[in-house]
Amino acid sequence: MNTPDRIRAIVGPAGFIDVPADMAPYLREHRGLYQGKTALVVKPASTAQVAEVVTACAQDGVAIVPQGGNTGLVGGQIPFPGDNAILLNLSRMNRIQNIDLLNDTVTLEAGVTLATLQSAAQDAGRLFPLHLASQGSAQVGGAISTNAGGNAVLRYGMMRELVLGIEAVLPDGQIWNGLRGLRKDNTGYDLKQLFIGGEGTLGIVTRAVVKLFPAPRSMETAMVSVPGVAEATALLPLLRAATGDQLTGFELVPRIGLEFVLKHIPGARDPMAAQHPWYVLIEISSGYESSITRAMLETALTAAADKGLISDAVVAKSMTQAKALWALRENLSDVQKLEGGSIKHDVAVPISAIAEFIARASAAVTAVLPGIRPVPFGHIGDGNVHFNLSQPVGMDTAQYLARWDEFNNIVHDIVADMDGSISAEHGLGRMKRDEITRYKSAIEMNLMRTVKRALDPKGIMNPGKLV
Amino acid sequence: MNTPDRIRAIVGPAGFIDVPADMAPYLREHRGLYQGKTALVVKPASTAQVAEVVTACAQDGVAIVPQGGNTGLVGGQIPFPGDNAILLNLSRMNRIQNIDLLNDTVTLEAGVTLATLQSAAQDAGRLFPLHLASQGSAQVGGAISTNAGGNAVLRYGMMRELVLGIEAVLPDGQIWNGLRGLRKDNTGYDLKQLFIGGEGTLGIVTRAVVKLFPAPRSMETAMVSVPGVAEATALLPLLRAATGDQLTGFELVPRIGLEFVLKHIPGARDPMAAQHPWYVLIEISSGYESSITRAMLETALTAAADKGLISDAVVAKSMTQAKALWALRENLSDVQKLEGGSIKHDVAVPISAIAEFIARASAAVTAVLPGIRPVPFGHIGDGNVHFNLSQPVGMDTAQYLARWDEFNNIVHDIVADMDGSISAEHGLGRMKRDEITRYKSAIEMNLMRTVKRALDPKGIMNPGKLV
Repeated sequence: MNTPDRIRAIVGPAGFIDVPADMAPYLREHRGLYQGKTALVVKPASTAQVAEVVTACAQDGVAIVPQGGNTGLVGGQIPFPGDNAILLNLSRMNRIQNIDLLNDTVTLEAGVTLATLQSAAQDAGRLFPLHLASQGSAQVGGAISTNAGGNAVLRYGMMRELVLGIEAVLPDGQIWNGLRGLRKDNTGYDLKQLFIGGEGTLGIVTRAVVKLFPAPRSMETAMVSVPGVAEATALLPLLRAATGDQLTGFELVPRIGLEFVLKHIPGARDPMAAQHPWYVLIEISSGYESSITRAMLETALTAAADKGLISDAVVAKSMTQAKALWALRENLSDVQKLEGGSIKHDVAVPISAIAEFIARASAAVTAVLPGIRPVPFGHIGDGNVHFNLSQPVGMDTAQYLARWDEFNNIVHDIVADMDGSISAEHGLGRMKRDEITRYKSAIEMNLMRTVKRALDPKGIMNPGKLV
Repeated sequence: MNTPDRIRAIVGPAGFIDVPADMAPYLREHRGLYQGKTALVVKPASTAQVAEVVTACAQDGVAIVPQGGNTGLVGGQIPFPGDNAILLNLSRMNRIQNIDLLNDTVTLEAGVTLATLQSAAQDAGRLFPLHLASQGSAQVGGAISTNAGGNAVLRYGMMRELVLGIEAVLPDGQIWNGLRGLRKDNTGYDLKQLFIGGEGTLGIVTRAVVKLFPAPRSMETAMVSVPGVAEATALLPLLRAATGDQLTGFELVPRIGLEFVLKHIPGARDPMAAQHPWYVLIEISSGYESSITRAMLETALTAAADKGLISDAVVAKSMTQAKALWALRENLSDVQKLEGGSIKHDVAVPISAIAEFIARASAAVTAVLPGIRPVPFGHIGDGNVHFNLSQPVGMDTAQYLARWDEFNNIVHDIVADMDGSISAEHGLGRMKRDEITRYKSAIEMNLMRTVKRALDPKGIMNPGKLV
């Protein structure tokens, strides 16, 4: 029997898709950047089925591409056209198996979406803090395999810090049960760390135990204007100290980005009477009642103003006002599409280097292409800047986007020079797999390849991705 | 030249010790449980020297035992008498290289003690939260290599969660520079995680970048009495929610442990008029002023009393009172020595299973040895119980301690049956290296050995430890 037939026999009629039209949505990256091919989309219903499928592929030397919600931004979840790889989608493994309110943990299958996990936590009076724009489709297994970030990383960390244990199917089809719900366990190498952020190249995450947190009693939101990025980064430690480290949002917004939003989003309003070069969106999530939290925030902002760190501030007086302020930040990506081509960079540098990075990178790209419009924004509380470059007004978009790699090199060389990361959140996948060799030392690349060869000697797990 | 002579030439006269009397302190575990042998104690002054020493050992096939402050509790830092291993001590690499207050990070060498790091953070108006009894001697490199825990893990995590980047010398002598100060970096496998908790079996951590936190503005301490352990664990989520997750201490104290302290520690006072079977020591570290924090704590304790979770409570009104309450907890280990032999277990189970674990394990050991005195205490906010067993009154201590392994098996079998960990904090070292094979699956043991073989094919890095 050929491998697809073996797999059909393992999972049964409900467990596979082989009609091209029905396979199409699984093979296309949602922005259309990557288009894949596969002989079969397999959707196992259990860890045991995943293990049988992987065993068959290992025996036959057939490659496997694991896929969750197909929301990845670097193509890790799309098979290469030439590989004849099997696409293994985990959507059917979507059960929440246990919520333990004393241990503050949830045990669940990899195919549960982040939104489902968040609402299950909320129904239980708890918080699961990882929030992404794609959380309605993005699945826990994918979020683990890509070490997803998103909002609130500042307070709660990335997915890596939210996972206590995992179950994974190894490249030879064996099931590793590391499904522990323990906050302390020093009994050897922390193997789960290899699968977290491993992009499915070392095995397939099938189940996990994740942490829950108390739901905040109050959340306060403010937008402040700052003279420059240096003042924004100086504001961070001041606010962390003043709030007892209960900051959950610290997001940079440049004036040009705000203007894009005001221009393109109906009903969007400039938060302040005067115009300012930079803004920071601030959110505090507290265990105290709103009045105490807001008073503390206002005291801190007054202190920041006295130090000259902020020039103006708007504190949301209602949920509606808070949502309106967040909308100014959350629309920044979308509105760039309406300003022509945008060349994107998801980078991180030490927080102390953000101001210098933005200045250097903006000058460098402007020197090469006068009129280019840098729109640096995002999670600067984590050192993470979405350094997006909107095309010059009136330039041909195709001609501009044709220079994507040229600008990536300019920006990423500066990032590397400042000991930063060329992929803070999104991973390497196939998009940055070759580019990373330009920035990581030969020693580090060799260490990564050594780990890959040791755990996946046949090279069948998501080949051509990450390493 | 033989290997010791090669190493002498590399590090120079200040860099080695070969006089037996002077080597002795490095070769003896501080409780006297392990006594090692070595041809040479080498104390390199730089990463480059460490790399040269390791290269020489790799070429000659000589084993290396890395050592920090020699405070480990499982013998990982002591060479086996028969191995003729070189002992590589990092004490001379004790420089703090950079404190970045905007990035909230410290870059330092592995030989810096935890106490030195803590006071450097304090001088900068920050907190480095990892606190251990041995922090005056314990070094950062050792704390990373053993993923040290200690107090405040509940709020800040173990060492793994406090490390952003490391530099390590690999088993072939190459230097891997992963010394990044980034909170977000998704550019491949998170290699540092293998060295954190790797107990020096995959390489030698020579430098690190660790996180700083805002110093709390107020700390409030309380001792509460609870009817049983189940009420203690039910109290935890209530307090986490009521304090906005600012709990930094949640420590179980059994009546028998308190009585040992009252009996043996001059000036120790029973915190409450009545006697209670169990107590919990609670500490909150807050960004708010003391009056607000204490009011919030008292409100939460009243709510807990209404639910029947606590029977009495004492809230410290001064630092002196807080210290006195902490002393009751911190003396629990020492006073056991004065009650004869103590057989120790450093275990973790899901927090929801702690009450059942203590009941089952206490019954099991009592059935085997009537009169044995279980003294379960410690970090139950992390699921971590120090399940120590004091000998029956009047029994011969040597005869009792001779049954150490027998009781370990009884207790650890119950821990394993409840999906727990037989080493929550202390690691495996040589003490639990064989025992762990009784509890970890063959698949997991094989994964660990695969990683070890891949990174240290010659097996020269701390052989016979961990895996």
